[in-house]
Amino acid sequence: MGKLLDEINGREDLVKLNTEQLYSLAGEIREYIIDVTAENGGHLASNLGAVELTIALYRALRPPKDKIIWDVGHQSYTHKIFSGRKESLKSLRRFGGECGFCDPSESEFDTYTSGHTSTSLSLALGAACARDLNGERYNVAAIIGDGALTGGLAREALDNIGHLKKRMLIVLNDNEMSISKNVGAMSNYLMHARTSSQYARSKTGIERTLERIPNGKNIADFVRRTKEHVKYLVSPGVIFEELGITYLGPIDGHDIRLMEDTFRRALRMDEPVLVHIVTKKGKGYSFAENEPQKYHGVAPFNKEKKIEDSCRETYSSVFGDEMCRMAENGENIAVITPAMTLGSGLKEFAQKYPERFYDVGIAEAHAVTFAAGLSAGVVPVVSLYSSFAQRAYDSFVHDAAVGKRHIVFAIDRAGLVPGDGKTHQGTLDIAFLSSIPNVSVFSPCSFEELRKMLRCAVQKSDNPVVVRYPKGCAQYEGDLGEFEPGKAAVIKKGRDVTIVAEGAALPEAVKAEKILYEKGIDAEVINVRSIKPLDMGTVSESVKKTGKLVTIEQGVRRGGMGEEIAARLAEEKMNFEVVVLALDEFVPHGTYEEILKAYKLDAQSVADAIKKEWFYGENEA
Amino acid sequence: MGKLLDEINGREDLVKLNTEQLYSLAGEIREYIIDVTAENGGHLASNLGAVELTIALYRALRPPKDKIIWDVGHQSYTHKIFSGRKESLKSLRRFGGECGFCDPSESEFDTYTSGHTSTSLSLALGAACARDLNGERYNVAAIIGDGALTGGLAREALDNIGHLKKRMLIVLNDNEMSISKNVGAMSNYLMHARTSSQYARSKTGIERTLERIPNGKNIADFVRRTKEHVKYLVSPGVIFEELGITYLGPIDGHDIRLMEDTFRRALRMDEPVLVHIVTKKGKGYSFAENEPQKYHGVAPFNKEKKIEDSCRETYSSVFGDEMCRMAENGENIAVITPAMTLGSGLKEFAQKYPERFYDVGIAEAHAVTFAAGLSAGVVPVVSLYSSFAQRAYDSFVHDAAVGKRHIVFAIDRAGLVPGDGKTHQGTLDIAFLSSIPNVSVFSPCSFEELRKMLRCAVQKSDNPVVVRYPKGCAQYEGDLGEFEPGKAAVIKKGRDVTIVAEGAALPEAVKAEKILYEKGIDAEVINVRSIKPLDMGTVSESVKKTGKLVTIEQGVRRGGMGEEIAARLAEEKMNFEVVVLALDEFVPHGTYEEILKAYKLDAQSVADAIKKEWFYGENEA
Repeated sequence: MGKLLDEINGREDLVKLNTEQLYSLAGEIREYIIDVTAENGGHLASNLGAVELTIALYRALRPPKDKIIWDVGHQSYTHKIFSGRKESLKSLRRFGGECGFCDPSESEFDTYTSGHTSTSLSLALGAACARDLNGERYNVAAIIGDGALTGGLAREALDNIGHLKKRMLIVLNDNEMSISKNVGAMSNYLMHARTSSQYARSKTGIERTLERIPNGKNIADFVRRTKEHVKYLVSPGVIFEELGITYLGPIDGHDIRLMEDTFRRALRMDEPVLVHIVTKKGKGYSFAENEPQKYHGVAPFNKEKKIEDSCRETYSSVFGDEMCRMAENGENIAVITPAMTLGSGLKEFAQKYPERFYDVGIAEAHAVTFAAGLSAGVVPVVSLYSSFAQRAYDSFVHDAAVGKRHIVFAIDRAGLVPGDGKTHQGTLDIAFLSSIPNVSVFSPCSFEELRKMLRCAVQKSDNPVVVRYPKGCAQYEGDLGEFEPGKAAVIKKGRDVTIVAEGAALPEAVKAEKILYEKGIDAEVINVRSIKPLDMGTVSESVKKTGKLVTIEQGVRRGGMGEEIAARLAEEKMNFEVVVLALDEFVPHGTYEEILKAYKLDAQSVADAIKKEWFYGENEA
Repeated sequence: MGKLLDEINGREDLVKLNTEQLYSLAGEIREYIIDVTAENGGHLASNLGAVELTIALYRALRPPKDKIIWDVGHQSYTHKIFSGRKESLKSLRRFGGECGFCDPSESEFDTYTSGHTSTSLSLALGAACARDLNGERYNVAAIIGDGALTGGLAREALDNIGHLKKRMLIVLNDNEMSISKNVGAMSNYLMHARTSSQYARSKTGIERTLERIPNGKNIADFVRRTKEHVKYLVSPGVIFEELGITYLGPIDGHDIRLMEDTFRRALRMDEPVLVHIVTKKGKGYSFAENEPQKYHGVAPFNKEKKIEDSCRETYSSVFGDEMCRMAENGENIAVITPAMTLGSGLKEFAQKYPERFYDVGIAEAHAVTFAAGLSAGVVPVVSLYSSFAQRAYDSFVHDAAVGKRHIVFAIDRAGLVPGDGKTHQGTLDIAFLSSIPNVSVFSPCSFEELRKMLRCAVQKSDNPVVVRYPKGCAQYEGDLGEFEPGKAAVIKKGRDVTIVAEGAALPEAVKAEKILYEKGIDAEVINVRSIKPLDMGTVSESVKKTGKLVTIEQGVRRGGMGEEIAARLAEEKMNFEVVVLALDEFVPHGTYEEILKAYKLDAQSVADAIKKEWFYGENEA
C-alpha cells in the first residue's frame, strides 16, 4: 500500500485531500488493486476504470446513509477500500474472504447483492421510493455501465424512473465496452452522444470526433445530416430526456473535481438525473488499457508481464471448436451469444463465420427468443452462462419449449464455479431447465462427450436441447462409446452400492469409487449423461442389484436429478436406500477444491458419506 | 356471419374488394368476433381494435410465405378468420378447439407460439436473419402494442434490430392502453409523439392537440419549449430513429387504405421500418370502447348488455382486500403490479393507497428487482400472475433470494387456468420457485387460508415468501386453525392410504376421499399448506401408518412437490409405495373441469387411480 492510502480509511479522510493528493491516491489505489488482483484473480479492467469515479462519489455523497448502488459490482474494489475493507481486500475471492461484488452481509455500505448486470436502476428506484414513503432524506445513486444499459431490466427501470420522477442520481459509466465489444443500437447511440458532444469537441477538437465516427464516415457528412445535427445540438442525451430523465454530460470520468461538482449539482435537483461519464477501462495499467477484454476477469497473474492467450483446452474452447467444425461441415447453424464471445470460446467462430454469428449484447432473454425466431430456418445454438441463463427462463418456456422448437442451448459454467461466488454459481440450471416440458438436458463428463452431445443436439434432435458443461477442465478419462439421449453409461461395474453422477460431478465420483474399493467396497458407477430424459432402466437395474443408491450433482437438491431418481425408484416400488448429495444453499466464492470440500461433493466426502451410511456405522465414519 | 364475410376465406378474396366493401367487411367481422366472444369468452377489446389493421396487412403482405408475427396474439382473431379458421373460430377456447393466441400446431399462418407480451420483435428479427442466411425472399412483419413495448425483452430486441438493420416491418399498434392503463416513460413519450405529430394536427386541429397535452399544460407553453418543439419537428419517432429504426407515422389505425399504402412503402425499404398506428381498443362496440379494460379479457356475456362489475369473491379479490386491511392496520407495505391492477384485485388498494401502490407497466423483472430495492425500507408485496412471474426468474434468484430479502410474492393464477391455454397455465411455479434457496412457498386451499398466509408472509417472515393461489374459487370448506410455515394439516384422519395435496388440488382430494370412503377405503387427507419448507414429520407419520401415499398437485411432476416428498421419504428409509399425480406436459385450453379431467386431477380420476393401484387390481379399476 502507498503512503497516502495508508492514511485513508473512509470518506472523512478523503474530503481532507487536495486535488493533487486525490490523484496521487488514485494512483496508489490502482497499484493496490493490481497487486490484489495479480495475487487472487478478479475483475481488473473495470475496477481500474472506476477509481476516480469512486473518489468523486465518496466526496459528493455520505455513505452508508446515502446509498451507492453499483451495477454488477465488478468495479467496487475502490468502494470496498473506502468502506472499511481496505485490509480485507487482500482476501478477495478466497474462501471465507471478501467477495468480488457487493454483498450486504459483508458491509452495510453494500445496500444490495450485486453480481448480475442491469439491476442497479430498479434497486435504486426502490430505495428512493422507500425513502420517500418513510419520510427519510438520504440520497440514492446507481452506477451503471454502457453494456449493462442494453439489458431489458435496465430499460424497464428507466421507463419507471422517468415516470415516477423520484430524486436520484444515475451515473452512466460509459467505457465503450462491456465484457465483449459492446454492440447494439444503444451502444451506437451512446457513441454518437460522446462524439457529437461538447465534451468531445473541447477535449480533442474536431479531429477526434472525426476519428470516432463509425465506419469511417467523415464529419462533413455528419454535419450535413441536418436532422441529427439539430437533435444533438439540443442534447446528446435526447433518448434519456425523452423518457423524462434529466441528462448531464458527457464528462470526463477521470476528472475527479468535475465529477464531484456535477454529482453535487445533480443531487440538488429534485428529480432523476443521469450523469454520463466517459472512462477508460483498465486505466493506468497499459496491458489492461490495450486489451481490456482480456483483463476483464483474470486469474492470478504476473503483473510485470502481459497475460498470454491461454491455449489450454477447456469445455468452452471445445464448444467453440465444435461449432467451427459443424459450420465447416455445412451444418446450417447460427450461434448466438449475449456479449460473451471470448468467455464462451467463440472468438474463432466469430471470425470465421461472421454471417452465422450474433452477439446480441447483454440481453439473455432476447438471445433465446431471437433463437426461437431463427429456428424457423436454421438450427440456432445459444451460448449462455448458467447463472445468466436464469434471465431467459420465460423465453425458454414460452418461445422455445411450448412450441417445441429445435434450438440448442450450450450452457457454460454449469455446476460449481470458483471465484465469483453466490451470484455466479451454475447450481440452479438442472432444476429450472429440467422442469420445463419438451426440453432435454445433457451433462457431459469429458470434452469428447461434449462434442458428441452437441452433434446429437444439432443433428438428431427436434426439440429444445440443453447441453450444460462446467467451467473447469476436470474430465472422466475413459471411453464412453456413442451418446444417445436417455441412455446412461455404467462406467464401472460393482455390487455393493450404486453411484449415479452427472457430468461435472463424475470425476469426483470416480475417485470416490477408488477410495471405496481400497476399503473393500465395490461400487458401481453410472454416468447419467442425459439428465432428461433419464435412463431409469439402467439405474433401476443397478439398484436392484445393490439396494443402495448415492446420487451426486453440482446443483440444488430441490428439483435436482437425485430427487427425481429417488422419487421414480420409489414409484417403481423398488426396495432401496438412497442418499442424495446435492446443494441446499447458495454457494459462496473460493477455489473449486475449497467449495467442493465445504459442500461435501469432493471424492473423499462422497466416500465418507457412503461408508458412514452403510458400511461402518456412524462412529467409525 | 354477414354476407361479405361468407365469401371471404383468405387473402385472394380480400384483394378483390373495393374500399367500401372493405369497411363493410370490417363491420361484419366485428359482429362475428363479438358473437364468438359473447359465446365463449376471450379477448374482445384488443381484437376489435385490430380489424382494419389485419385487413391492411393481409392486402400488403402474402402470408403464410410472408411471416406476420402478432405480439401476445390477443388481437389475432381476424388473422384466424383470414387463414382458414373462420368456421373453427366458433370453437374458440374450448377444449380441443381453437386457442385464443397463435399456435403453429394450429395453422402454418401462425409462425410462432404467442401468448406472452413483448416477444414479437425478437422472433421477427430471428425470422429475418434466417431468411437472409438461407437466401430466401419473404417479408417479415411484427405487430406490437404500446403496452408490450415497455417490456424489457422488446427493448432488447429494438436495440438488436437497430444494430443488424435487417429488412422488416414493425407495426406499433398504439391504443394508448395495455391491460391496465399504460404507464411509464415510454407511454408518455408515445403520447407526445401522437399529440405533437401531423396526424394529430391534421385530424382535429390545434384544439385537440391542446386537449391531449398531459396535466392540462397549454399549447403555448408547449410550443415555447423550443427544445422539444425542435425535436418533434424533426420526427415524432426520435426515440426509434436514434436507435437506427426508420419511423413512419403516426397514422390512423382504422384507415385501411392509408395503412396498406404505408406498409407497402415500408416493405420497399431495405431496412427495419416502424409504422406507428393509432387504434381504438374496443372499436365499434360502444360498451368496449367506453371500458376497454373491462372488455380486455371476458367470460361469456350477453352482448346486448353492459358487463356488470363482478362482486363475486375470488382469490384475487381476497388478496386485494387483505392488502387494504393491512395498510389500514398500519403495516408498512407497498404493493407492486406489472400492469395487472384489475385482474389482480388491486383496484380498491390503488385508489385508497396510491402512495403505496406501484403499477410499473408490463415489466415483471423490474417489478421484482424494484421490490428488492423497496425492501430496504418497507415490506414490498409483488403481485404477479404465475405464468408471467416466469419472466422475473433471475430477479427472484439474484435480487430477492441470494440476499434473503423480505419480499412477499402474491402469485395469482397458480395451477390450472381455464381458457387461455399452454402459455398461461400456472403449472411451473412450484418447480421453479421452490428450487431457489432461501425462498418459502405457501399454497392456500381457501380464501381464509390465503389471508392467514399473507399475514404470516408480511408480519412474521424475514425472507422471500411466495403465496401462490389459483384463479378459480374452489375452496376447502373446513376450519384449518392457525397457519404456520412448515406445518401441514391433517384434515381427515384415515388408515388405508395417505393423500397429500397442495391448495388448488385440495378440493378435489377431499371429494376423492368421499368417493373412496363410500367404497370402504379410509383415506387420510393432508393439506400440505407450506410446499417449502415441507412438513415431512406430518407426512411421514401418516405414511408410516398407511404405507401408501398419493400426492396431488396442479403443477409439473419434474421438480414438483410430489417428487420431493417421495424422495425424502425414500431418504428416510421409509417402507412405502407412492403415486405422484402431477403434469408431464403443457396443458392446453378448455374449461377448468375439462382440463382437470383430461389430466386426471379431478376427484373421480384420483379415486380411480388409488383404487387401481392398491385396492381392486388393474382389471377392476
